[in-house]
Amino acid sequence: MTNTLRQDHDLAFMLRYENIAWYEDGVVRILDRRIYPAKTEFVVCRTHQEVAQAITDMVTQSCGPFTAAAAGMALAAFECRDRNEAGQLAYLTRAAETISHARPTTVSRMARITGGCLEAARAALADGEPVDRAIVAHLVRTNDRRYGRVDQIAGHLVDRIPQNGTVMTQCFGETIVGMMLRRAKEQGKTLRIFCPETRPYFQGARLTATVCSEMGFDTTVITDNMPAFVLEREGVDVFTCAADAICLDGHVVNKIGTLQIAICARHFGVPFYVTGVPDQGHPDRASIHIEQRDPEFVLQAMGVRTAAPGVKGYYPSFDITPPELITGVVTDLGVYAPDQLNQYLAVSQIGPYEMVV
Amino acid sequence: MTNTLRQDHDLAFMLRYENIAWYEDGVVRILDRRIYPAKTEFVVCRTHQEVAQAITDMVTQSCGPFTAAAAGMALAAFECRDRNEAGQLAYLTRAAETISHARPTTVSRMARITGGCLEAARAALADGEPVDRAIVAHLVRTNDRRYGRVDQIAGHLVDRIPQNGTVMTQCFGETIVGMMLRRAKEQGKTLRIFCPETRPYFQGARLTATVCSEMGFDTTVITDNMPAFVLEREGVDVFTCAADAICLDGHVVNKIGTLQIAICARHFGVPFYVTGVPDQGHPDRASIHIEQRDPEFVLQAMGVRTAAPGVKGYYPSFDITPPELITGVVTDLGVYAPDQLNQYLAVSQIGPYEMVV
Repeated sequence: MTNTLRQDHDLAFMLRYENIAWYEDGVVRILDRRIYPAKTEFVVCRTHQEVAQAITDMVTQSCGPFTAAAAGMALAAFECRDRNEAGQLAYLTRAAETISHARPTTVSRMARITGGCLEAARAALADGEPVDRAIVAHLVRTNDRRYGRVDQIAGHLVDRIPQNGTVMTQCFGETIVGMMLRRAKEQGKTLRIFCPETRPYFQGARLTATVCSEMGFDTTVITDNMPAFVLEREGVDVFTCAADAICLDGHVVNKIGTLQIAICARHFGVPFYVTGVPDQGHPDRASIHIEQRDPEFVLQAMGVRTAAPGVKGYYPSFDITPPELITGVVTDLGVYAPDQLNQYLAVSQIGPYEMVV
Repeated sequence: MTNTLRQDHDLAFMLRYENIAWYEDGVVRILDRRIYPAKTEFVVCRTHQEVAQAITDMVTQSCGPFTAAAAGMALAAFECRDRNEAGQLAYLTRAAETISHARPTTVSRMARITGGCLEAARAALADGEPVDRAIVAHLVRTNDRRYGRVDQIAGHLVDRIPQNGTVMTQCFGETIVGMMLRRAKEQGKTLRIFCPETRPYFQGARLTATVCSEMGFDTTVITDNMPAFVLEREGVDVFTCAADAICLDGHVVNKIGTLQIAICARHFGVPFYVTGVPDQGHPDRASIHIEQRDPEFVLQAMGVRTAAPGVKGYYPSFDITPPELITGVVTDLGVYAPDQLNQYLAVSQIGPYEMVV
């Protein structure tokens, strides 16, 4: 299992704060975040197509799909190991295409991951080494660099939160929120955290709040109709979340609901910080395709039907927050105004195949 | 059962569109809206204190608590029927106090109902008539006048919605939404309706959407984190809801979530109409006490726990929308700007003990 995990993080830490997926000897296992933490179960994939389907089915979220994608590429290498070199590269190129399109909103970021895996595969083939292991080694290196950047981001974010501050999150990825809170602890900062529950999957209630609470912070879950009330009355110092994509023009794609909290935060004068780095695959808002998921899923909660027959559902996974509602983008290199992300790109060292956060 | 129902509405209609409560021979029965429409069950109350508790426990919503309050007063009259006149009036006065304070946000409106019941009781005692029946007769008259006003409100609201229009609601009381849609049908208007689900009780998904769908309208349920997305992209013509209280200065108290939809509607230029009439018991925002309910209830959905142990909940039942976010208050006498509600009061014929909508 350690082959995709950083050596100084044990499994318990990773289960809590990371969306685990790993490849080993022809099988990919992905922690099923749809039922975690009530149950700790893994989805087992025996083909790279099954990995793509698991990503489509939202088995894993946050950075989990990117780790799963690289693990899926290692699996694809295993599947085609008996072909000749050209045959393996053709197979892997098709697999990269399949995996990258598992979710329409993240095609650009996925292509960075699968592209890096293809590079690693070419090098391994040239050196006569096992391709699946080379892809796993690439994933471990990439993940380690990502952890380093996320830790930098966490530090810059904590700098923006006052001592005894109150923070509102929105479906906040576990790696970044875990590292943010570790930094806060190092600085001796006491924080109070409000987590909207994030319907229809309840990631905020199930995942974000669990991380915050287990790390010892005062954690309150609210339903998704309460953020304005809390922003108005509970002295929120910062609203913050990660992003599924940060366009170069400062538009931010994130879990549905981010836009309306951002509008309300602006209304009540609460700063809004987005964590992550600009995505060169998305120059602007027009480059974003919003994924519409199965509308039936909105008509149930925790598996229990809520609406009567004949009523329709509607399920956009993400929304787009415009730059004028964003106070700053918190990157590994510091905080940038959303209309000045080109300044970040001018100094960033992130290569074309990096997992960006 | 017909003794608290308008004669031209059959039970099936009332079950769908009204929050039923009625008194008969020493028992009050209240339709349990917490489980309707999955189940049609009634809470049986044998004392007026049990009626007050049922109101506190949100067995019924919308106008249901006011009907239940009057039924509870009839039950109190039954309880004290063997006392002398002064003893009965003293008992009923205490019962009115108990019932009116069942929910802190509606004390003023409740006092109108119970006050009217006390007036009816005094008259019955003076005439030597059975007090419980006199209170029921008062309730029937009051309800009939209310239906007439709600129908007027419905007509004025429909006038503000274009043909083939799209409407967003928020936990919209069944009587008003049912009458609005009946008026729309009479005018041959086709409407598309978006209903946020209204956590944590899902009244929007369970109740509002059921009424809209059963009346033949294109009805879509969204989760409470989607209104901004829908307002931005789905061509919503009007956002509308009822109110638990409309202050004389134009502040509107309604189900939690109304405020943030109102902020987003203003952001996207969508008009917001509130239905109802100003409440003379609430001169301004400072007169509103926001009810904080059991925070644990936020940590479950449809009876299934969502958050880990150690995570807190937070459950304000209502929020307050300021007049600057409200396009108009739709009363029985027409649409008024929220800062000109005194003009309504100057011409309104509503007596001090009326059920206001």
